[in-house]
Amino acid sequence: MSSKAKYMDTALAIAEVTLGQTSPNPSVGAVVVKDGKVLGIGSHLQAGTEHAEVHALKQAGDLAEGADIYVTLEPCSHHGKTPPCADLIIERKLARVFVACLDPNPEIAGRGVDKLRQAGITVEVGLREERARELNRKFFKHIRHKRPYVTLKAAATLDGKTATASGDSRWITSSEAREDVHKQRDLHDAILVGIGTVLQDDPLLTARLPQGSKNPIRIVLDTHLRIPEDSKLLNSQEAMTWVICGSSANTGQAKCNKSHVKVWQLDTPEIQLEAVLDLLGEQNVQSVYVEGGSGVHGSFVEKSLFDECHWYIAPRLLGGIDAVTSVGGISPRLMKEGKRLTFTSFTQIGTDIKIIAVPDKGEQ
Amino acid sequence: MSSKAKYMDTALAIAEVTLGQTSPNPSVGAVVVKDGKVLGIGSHLQAGTEHAEVHALKQAGDLAEGADIYVTLEPCSHHGKTPPCADLIIERKLARVFVACLDPNPEIAGRGVDKLRQAGITVEVGLREERARELNRKFFKHIRHKRPYVTLKAAATLDGKTATASGDSRWITSSEAREDVHKQRDLHDAILVGIGTVLQDDPLLTARLPQGSKNPIRIVLDTHLRIPEDSKLLNSQEAMTWVICGSSANTGQAKCNKSHVKVWQLDTPEIQLEAVLDLLGEQNVQSVYVEGGSGVHGSFVEKSLFDECHWYIAPRLLGGIDAVTSVGGISPRLMKEGKRLTFTSFTQIGTDIKIIAVPDKGEQ
Repeated sequence: MSSKAKYMDTALAIAEVTLGQTSPNPSVGAVVVKDGKVLGIGSHLQAGTEHAEVHALKQAGDLAEGADIYVTLEPCSHHGKTPPCADLIIERKLARVFVACLDPNPEIAGRGVDKLRQAGITVEVGLREERARELNRKFFKHIRHKRPYVTLKAAATLDGKTATASGDSRWITSSEAREDVHKQRDLHDAILVGIGTVLQDDPLLTARLPQGSKNPIRIVLDTHLRIPEDSKLLNSQEAMTWVICGSSANTGQAKCNKSHVKVWQLDTPEIQLEAVLDLLGEQNVQSVYVEGGSGVHGSFVEKSLFDECHWYIAPRLLGGIDAVTSVGGISPRLMKEGKRLTFTSFTQIGTDIKIIAVPDKGEQ
Repeated sequence: MSSKAKYMDTALAIAEVTLGQTSPNPSVGAVVVKDGKVLGIGSHLQAGTEHAEVHALKQAGDLAEGADIYVTLEPCSHHGKTPPCADLIIERKLARVFVACLDPNPEIAGRGVDKLRQAGITVEVGLREERARELNRKFFKHIRHKRPYVTLKAAATLDGKTATASGDSRWITSSEAREDVHKQRDLHDAILVGIGTVLQDDPLLTARLPQGSKNPIRIVLDTHLRIPEDSKLLNSQEAMTWVICGSSANTGQAKCNKSHVKVWQLDTPEIQLEAVLDLLGEQNVQSVYVEGGSGVHGSFVEKSLFDECHWYIAPRLLGGIDAVTSVGGISPRLMKEGKRLTFTSFTQIGTDIKIIAVPDKGEQ
């Protein structure tokens, strides 16, 4: 591996550890190097605070002059909550800038790089580009499509069941897999379930990690506002609860008036997923972790409105044409009309197998 | 690894390559060693021909005197189609015999070892025992329970579907996975499907391997003898077809009179799986590869009548509460009443994932 790739990988690694804590900003890392010596390292830690380049250059101090900087995302050229990083790099007289990938916003992509080049700085774009895009795929999706990145999650038996006919599902998976789910919740801006899941399981939907965690917004798709007054989602205040309902729901009910609860009424009597995703995108929700149930997954799959699938497969055969299937709805007429995926990883977690998949490139 | 373990592993490896070709006999390997030098190697190759020990000792010739022999299964002490191997080992004056595991038949287990010890030969039992039992698990199951070893096989989408509501299932899995299925067929004495699969797919159910293969018996569970006159199973003669029907089926139909077709009529109007497995056991069918469909798998799972599961999971989400599920029947009331498994392996085959599981030890 070239030393350039090594430094960019370091920048990517220090960006990765901040995943989930920078929203609505991306995770970014920067490394300043001169004569084979690392002079400064920094990550963007939280929205509203210094960018990665600022931290790394501060650490490098006066030695930054004539040095190279490796940044996982194109340095910004506009005044946001902090001054433009491109200006800072020019001011501190760096010799070269290595950028893994350009800004995902097509309107400003390349502007930071142009500014640097106009100042006489050598810029190279594309080092470890794929890894950098993968790192901030949720941010990229939101910037480009104004909708959140959607991850479908299911915990099913080997034969694809998520519950018995009577709705019993505790517990399909091992405690290790359930802890992994809590980690995933922590990496998303929001968790989404259907009202059926609330009525059946009364879930808390928080990220309960031993080391502490931020709690994502809990979203319920609830056409007729049937969410029970005494449900955990309406009574536990550790996280926001957003209830999305159709146009004919009665939003004047007392249960809607709680400080941690927000009711969003759509324009149509039925809930259209496209409208839900548009709403979430507008509200700066960059990523949503869809925990089902079966009907909700069925709608996301039917409309191809998902970016990633996390499937936890438990060592159990339930059996039953009457059992609940992980993805409901109505099946297409032919097998080839099902949504094609690519498996990106499969690993053992506890006694279960976790499979990660993304829509096949030809599919979307 | 000790040299003893190394020699036994060699004996196991040469037994493994004969899997599927020795039925109704087990796969057995033998290695003769003296002063750190291998003098003879042999596997049992086919029922009715020489046992592994005979081949290995023949190769060793006069040098076998005072040597050690490593055998994966206890040498026989009775006159079968060939003379007892224990007698041969005594006659050839070997010094020590290492046996991986005893004969699975409780009535004769230990007799070969006793005979050898009585002749003054040192015998050690249990070297690599687990691997040796695993190797011949189908043979062991049949000897001990008088029923075949049952492997359930399913090819399903990530969400557990094996076909659309209209029954379309071509093709769920990649060609690599389908070739693996053909290899598995070749390793079993019989393939079993329900009449629904025959009516829906009209399968050929042969082991189509480029290098050639033996064809297992094709078994159809067909309560009312509905198998179509023009079905491939009744017309292709590459393999035997056994049709198992209930007591009220009309077995006098012309379609039953073909040289490669055998109709077995049970004593009860409905097909009881226990009776099917007893019948197969009596007929020396040591292993059966159950390829479904959904209802047949449901019956095997409900009654816990399976020893292993091979699940091919394809990168596709079909969706649909109306789609065909890999394991049908009626679901138990509670999730914990589902059959617990242990995953023994999961590997990528083509674009699919193959999961192998066995019933959890607490389960059966």
